[in-house]
Amino acid sequence: MATQRLWTDEEVSRIPRVLAVFDDIRATRKSDFVNNFWRALANEPALLESTWSRVKEVMIAPGALDPLVKELIYIAVSTINGCSYCIHSHTAAARAKGMSDEQHAELLAVMGLAAQTNSLASALQIPVDPEFTGG
Amino acid sequence: MATQRLWTDEEVSRIPRVLAVFDDIRATRKSDFVNNFWRALANEPALLESTWSRVKEVMIAPGALDPLVKELIYIAVSTINGCSYCIHSHTAAARAKGMSDEQHAELLAVMGLAAQTNSLASALQIPVDPEFTGG
Amino acid sequence: MATQRLWTDEEVSRIPRVLAVFDDIRATRKSDFVNNFWRALANEPALLESTWSRVKEVMIAPGALDPLVKELIYIAVSTINGCSYCIHSHTAAARAKGMSDEQHAELLAVMGLAAQTNSLASALQIPVDPEFTGG
Amino acid sequence: MATQRLWTDEEVSRIPRVLAVFDDIRATRKSDFVNNFWRALANEPALLESTWSRVKEVMIAPGALDPLVKELIYIAVSTINGCSYCIHSHTAAARAKGMSDEQHAELLAVMGLAAQTNSLASALQIPVDPEFTGG
Amino acid sequence: MATQRLWTDEEVSRIPRVLAVFDDIRATRKSDFVNNFWRALANEPALLESTWSRVKEVMIAPGALDPLVKELIYIAVSTINGCSYCIHSHTAAARAKGMSDEQHAELLAVMGLAAQTNSLASALQIPVDPEFTGG
Amino acid sequence: MATQRLWTDEEVSRIPRVLAVFDDIRATRKSDFVNNFWRALANEPALLESTWSRVKEVMIAPGALDPLVKELIYIAVSTINGCSYCIHSHTAAARAKGMSDEQHAELLAVMGLAAQTNSLASALQIPVDPEFTGG
Repeated sequence: MATQRLWTDEEVSRIPRVLAVFDDIRATRKSDFVNNFWRALANEPALLESTWSRVKEVMIAPGALDPLVKELIYIAVSTINGCSYCIHSHTAAARAKGMSDEQHAELLAVMGLAAQTNSLASALQIPVDPEFTGG
Repeated sequence: MATQRLWTDEEVSRIPRVLAVFDDIRATRKSDFVNNFWRALANEPALLESTWSRVKEVMIAPGALDPLVKELIYIAVSTINGCSYCIHSHTAAARAKGMSDEQHAELLAVMGLAAQTNSLASALQIPVDPEFTGG
Repeated sequence: MATQRLWTDEEVSRIPRVLAVFDDIRATRKSDFVNNFWRALANEPALLESTWSRVKEVMIAPGALDPLVKELIYIAVSTINGCSYCIHSHTAAARAKGMSDEQHAELLAVMGLAAQTNSLASALQIPVDPEFTGG
Repeated sequence: MATQRLWTDEEVSRIPRVLAVFDDIRATRKSDFVNNFWRALANEPALLESTWSRVKEVMIAPGALDPLVKELIYIAVSTINGCSYCIHSHTAAARAKGMSDEQHAELLAVMGLAAQTNSLASALQIPVDPEFTGG
Repeated sequence: MATQRLWTDEEVSRIPRVLAVFDDIRATRKSDFVNNFWRALANEPALLESTWSRVKEVMIAPGALDPLVKELIYIAVSTINGCSYCIHSHTAAARAKGMSDEQHAELLAVMGLAAQTNSLASALQIPVDPEFTGG
Repeated sequence: MATQRLWTDEEVSRIPRVLAVFDDIRATRKSDFVNNFWRALANEPALLESTWSRVKEVMIAPGALDPLVKELIYIAVSTINGCSYCIHSHTAAARAKGMSDEQHAELLAVMGLAAQTNSLASALQIPVDPEFTGG
């Protein structure tokens, strides 16, 4: 159903470059489960490596934003881009990081309001106030 | 330049229904500044009322998410929707609520990564793992 | 400022294939004004011809939808796609075809609501009811 | 399959705040059928209430645009946003309000043309004619 | 499941205007297979004709870009627009025109990078350098 | 006008981490010109480094696709995402890599057709043919 084959663990085990990434995903997440996103990227080892490396840096390494907040932002981007896979995987990730039903409801309310006012501001072609640009 | 006229304070003062919303914006935000978004919506009083009422409920009333987190989500939605006005106004709002340069940088990193993996997951048409849907 | 040069009337007059389209735009619209969209497409005569021909068929020839309704749909698509040029040109066209301020306000209300519920339905990944597909 | 549970009528009947909205949906639409969108929103009663209240105001209350025209605009927004659920539900709603096959065909022709010219105008970065902005 | 019925060959054979397009698709592609896109458009003969005629002109007639390059661009547009059907059909078309796994991987890398930097440039609202506009 | 300050060469020269990236951009491109995208990212050194490093890998290192083809794909993604800055910068880059007017015209024709058929396929919610998925 995907436009590229999803690799099984047995196939992964035969290609050291791919196996190294899968091993690191399992070790970093402390879980044996590797989701389909990585199994599809396995067809393209350089892209697999660079994407996983970036996910580790941005989403897993400690930073200025709380890990749950980063997942909420990820869900928002994925929703507006209409990426069904990403909405499912990052909603699951947000729940695993403690997102409550109230927080999910509020995320939806904010996204819905933003999408609504985005369309109003675009249809009205409102000029940016100089106050917002230091002008 | 907008597709509707931007109302001046003088014009607002002549229409009680519009003035009531502007007064509430000023009182709620404790600031005399009313930005162009509301001055364009003033042409459409019912839409002005319902939009401001929703902004108060979702963005200003206390809830399950921190006010700054809500602004970060708003920026993310506005960026993916390409709403220039909204990016400017909500980046200014996030700064006013304490967003640091490090937090802004991290918001950008998360958005950029999400946009990148959204396009990968879409191009690959990856089926959702049953683990994500309780299946 | 455009990524292709905008042709002046003098330049258009020198290329018969381009001039023929400009003459037809003027005759069809009963106006001497030819907007920048066509002046930019003049760089690409085949695309100019096929685009104008399609605009005539879809937007100008009589059909099952009212001409103003077609402009409202055009504004909606252009707003969600964030095409600033198209929002301006088709809002002007809708006004020229009789769009009232009340109708513009209602168009904005419908677009805003649709954009909001689109984001809710996507974030919730709601399965389509069999009632909607005859299933 | 949704990221939130879909409520059954039995579950709805136990929560008065949710039941009140479902009762109003049934009374307003004069139909016992309540589609999945509302069953998913039932997890978030405040969002359920505000969304239904806005749908009643914008889509059901009489206004400056014909009810069928509002559905056509809704389909256009949902199509460009790629919201599969919304395309299905609002195409069904438009048919229920009398949309003919010819009107559906013409809606598609207008949307297709708008999407095409949006991409041309964006790729060409065409400056807005002063004639469109009263400039 | 579609919002319009998919026509069978038997139904197509009864409507000469539709049959003529199907015959031309088969003759042009030298294949008996006609995919669902055309079977859905068969409900709207004028749109079927104009769409197929445009596909022949743009995608099949010889031009300034290699046929495979045109498919790669088609996949890129379809991915960002989130059109699942189009991603599948044009990835299959690109493979039929010789796209290698390495080229698919590189297409994904370019799309992912572009989507990422698009979101950065939009969030930062970077002014266009005069060097890019001949300014 | 940007939501972050654009760094001057003088400011860049004071921060070794940022200067190293700017030096590498100049050396790699064999040009003293550094465009605003990098001057805005300079506020966020880690993001500057990872973005430039990815651009070098994907767009500059030799690969399976021609450098000009990669620019055409970049323009297509940027156009659909409505990123004005990126459309300008990558159209200039494509011209610098030899894009002819005929190739630009054909890129626009393909993008326009893809955007049009994307909206048709989405509005029609056409099921994917089993032939496209090996099914």
